[in-house]
Amino acid sequence: MEETNANYEEQYEEKYKEYSENVLTTLNNKDMDEFREVFLEMHPYDQAMFFNEQSKENRMLIYAYLAPNELADVMINIELEETKGFFMEMDPRFAAMVFSQMPADDAVDTLNQLDKDAVVSFLTIMDKDAANEIKHLLHYEEKTAGSIMTTEYVAILKSQTVNEALLHLKQKAQEAETIYYLYVLDDDKRLVGVVSLRDLIISSDSTLIGEIMSENIVAVSVARDQEEIAQMFRDYDFLALPVVDFQDHLLGIITVDDILDVMEEEASEDYSKLAGISETDRPNDNAFSAAKKRLPWLVILLFMGMFTASLIGQFEQTLDQVAVLAIFIPLIAGMAGNSGTQALAVAVRGLATGDYENTGKIKLIFRETATGFITGTVCGIVISFVIFFWKDDLFLGILVGVSIMASIVVATIAGSLVPMIMDRFNIDPAVASGPFITTINDIISVLIYFGLATTFMAYL
Amino acid sequence: MEETNANYEEQYEEKYKEYSENVLTTLNNKDMDEFREVFLEMHPYDQAMFFNEQSKENRMLIYAYLAPNELADVMINIELEETKGFFMEMDPRFAAMVFSQMPADDAVDTLNQLDKDAVVSFLTIMDKDAANEIKHLLHYEEKTAGSIMTTEYVAILKSQTVNEALLHLKQKAQEAETIYYLYVLDDDKRLVGVVSLRDLIISSDSTLIGEIMSENIVAVSVARDQEEIAQMFRDYDFLALPVVDFQDHLLGIITVDDILDVMEEEASEDYSKLAGISETDRPNDNAFSAAKKRLPWLVILLFMGMFTASLIGQFEQTLDQVAVLAIFIPLIAGMAGNSGTQALAVAVRGLATGDYENTGKIKLIFRETATGFITGTVCGIVISFVIFFWKDDLFLGILVGVSIMASIVVATIAGSLVPMIMDRFNIDPAVASGPFITTINDIISVLIYFGLATTFMAYL
Repeated sequence: MEETNANYEEQYEEKYKEYSENVLTTLNNKDMDEFREVFLEMHPYDQAMFFNEQSKENRMLIYAYLAPNELADVMINIELEETKGFFMEMDPRFAAMVFSQMPADDAVDTLNQLDKDAVVSFLTIMDKDAANEIKHLLHYEEKTAGSIMTTEYVAILKSQTVNEALLHLKQKAQEAETIYYLYVLDDDKRLVGVVSLRDLIISSDSTLIGEIMSENIVAVSVARDQEEIAQMFRDYDFLALPVVDFQDHLLGIITVDDILDVMEEEASEDYSKLAGISETDRPNDNAFSAAKKRLPWLVILLFMGMFTASLIGQFEQTLDQVAVLAIFIPLIAGMAGNSGTQALAVAVRGLATGDYENTGKIKLIFRETATGFITGTVCGIVISFVIFFWKDDLFLGILVGVSIMASIVVATIAGSLVPMIMDRFNIDPAVASGPFITTINDIISVLIYFGLATTFMAYL
Repeated sequence: MEETNANYEEQYEEKYKEYSENVLTTLNNKDMDEFREVFLEMHPYDQAMFFNEQSKENRMLIYAYLAPNELADVMINIELEETKGFFMEMDPRFAAMVFSQMPADDAVDTLNQLDKDAVVSFLTIMDKDAANEIKHLLHYEEKTAGSIMTTEYVAILKSQTVNEALLHLKQKAQEAETIYYLYVLDDDKRLVGVVSLRDLIISSDSTLIGEIMSENIVAVSVARDQEEIAQMFRDYDFLALPVVDFQDHLLGIITVDDILDVMEEEASEDYSKLAGISETDRPNDNAFSAAKKRLPWLVILLFMGMFTASLIGQFEQTLDQVAVLAIFIPLIAGMAGNSGTQALAVAVRGLATGDYENTGKIKLIFRETATGFITGTVCGIVISFVIFFWKDDLFLGILVGVSIMASIVVATIAGSLVPMIMDRFNIDPAVASGPFITTINDIISVLIYFGLATTFMAYL
């Protein structure tokens, strides 16, 4: 399998190595012309990779050798968190020019990383048109349509012909984020239709746009959540989606490449939350900031764990008499935690992908209850037999088996119920992390286990 | 916020309701012409939603009223798992025609859901060209480039002019999956360049393709893993990517709409695995198949838990003498599990998104060790004080505090080390589920806690 890969893939990596070595040589020679020739031939993503690997000294040379629009291409391909430092080390006037050359949505994302003071000064020295566009976008809340849209779209009129539209497109093609959809506006800038470039290409030159445009427009409100928008892209296979205000004025468009980033971001977030990390960890974070992101949950869980401990403390008498009971505490609590986490993951993921909109949430709760009974019964019977043969104590086996069964049933129901309830109250269900559900289920299982043990003490 | 949404979004939902009611009326009236008129005006995704809601009786009417290519549009918008039943209830000849009208990659995905017998019979009665294309794609392994690519692309020659290419495009535009990239082949069908429709639009008619094509092609090998391909789309903002064999022959293309599905699928899978579910649960699964997907991990964890229990059993003497020790078992094991899961999630997600390729894995292990020391020290000090004030027992407080600190440090290192090692041996690190790490960390923490307790027994 590996050998068949000796094609474009490896060639590409080799090419990158070769290119980047060449570019480095030109930098070392301080040869601007040569640098521009080799560097600008690379894909902007590769340019960004190269840029990222450079020392501050080399970066300073690159700032001097590139035009603002060329550096803008590099900057939009760098991880957002890292751009801050780069912009702060550039000459402010040059940085402002770079900002004005970036697609407005990317510029806004980057500016959102900076201190307010810096943002204001950049906006002041920036080209006025670009500054206005950015100021406009800066108002939109994070993670809404407004924050991920761009204003670089192609708009045409209903009364234009295909030929006129194509000519207009040729002019706009360089700066527009997508030319594959053209948005048809009325005189009031309201969105009335959409034409795909595909439709344009296959129509004759003199056809009116009004005849071929689709009026069956799917548009999103500027305040719409980005996760829902990602789902629409997935369902309807869009390449771009228009964003409108409450009067259907076209404000901008969202393109599929930004949606790929949104999906990655949302998946990482959900994943981190399931593991009990408030914010997604970055590989560049140092240990202190990584610890800061994890400690909130850990401390909450510590106190919840103390509560579990004090619960067990209530049964100290039982424990004093039958010390062997302690042996099975982690097993029972662990199994409750595990089955609860499974149920939680199914429910949260189902809610996130919208899978339950049709099938119904009540149905899921019933199914989870039944699933809990099946898994609980299987695990309970297995453990009863194992303990019976190991400890030669039938009653202990049954006690642990029944406790595990009951704990799994309750934990499974809790695991699916908690995110459903959160969703009902419009709280993001992904906040219900695995460790949180696990600790709740620790408490439930300890109560079940020691409750049963204390009740049937006489038989132990 | 909610009120500003009274625009296209709500209109769209209302429109869907209105449309679907109209369509339903035409079905009830058995009015084929009216049905076709209203139904075919809906977006294929909405058609699929409507189709999905129908009784078998109504579905039979729909099969009779629609042409194979029209039904194909509906079928590619239905969840893969559900299509099986629909194709099996159609007349086999009609079903075969529908398959031959579907994009080949979607047809293959659907056929992969069916029994081998059914696949063979469909392929036999199908249109020969379509059957050959599908047979060809059926050979590719699941989750590789080959399995998600389509063969409906537009190929041109280096020697053609822009005008000739545009004319060729007009002919192919209807059936091609994307017309936004045109692939340039040599006489031997080898990929030598790519031209975007954008480049074509802005060039003059008589320009040669060879002059405007980009030779800096990014292509993937047919055996490449789909997750890596998704990452390339995200990094390079592609709308489509060519797939080649080891001699650079163009075999097909992958389009961004399929990548959105891949990303969703991979995110769901990673998420499920973190929670210890072998396969992603489906909302339509019944309780038995849901239980079947969860039991493997649960039973493994049950036996691992038994091992933990037998370990604690080794310390029964210690427990008999100081029963209060048992109270803190779930707390210490729980904290180890929680911090281990956090570290695991960071490492797995980082590996999945390729974030560590540049920064280095060794560096991460060091950072995690430092993070573990910080979180462990904080939690250890907090718990020592709480226990000291609660139980008025300084030594017990220190014992639990030190145990928690040591457990968190070891668990954090284990949480990041295990996925790194798995990745090293080319095992998908996402397989290392949270519950698995949690149970390993249970064992480690119990050993630390009882080891310390037994050693310093005299002070308790």
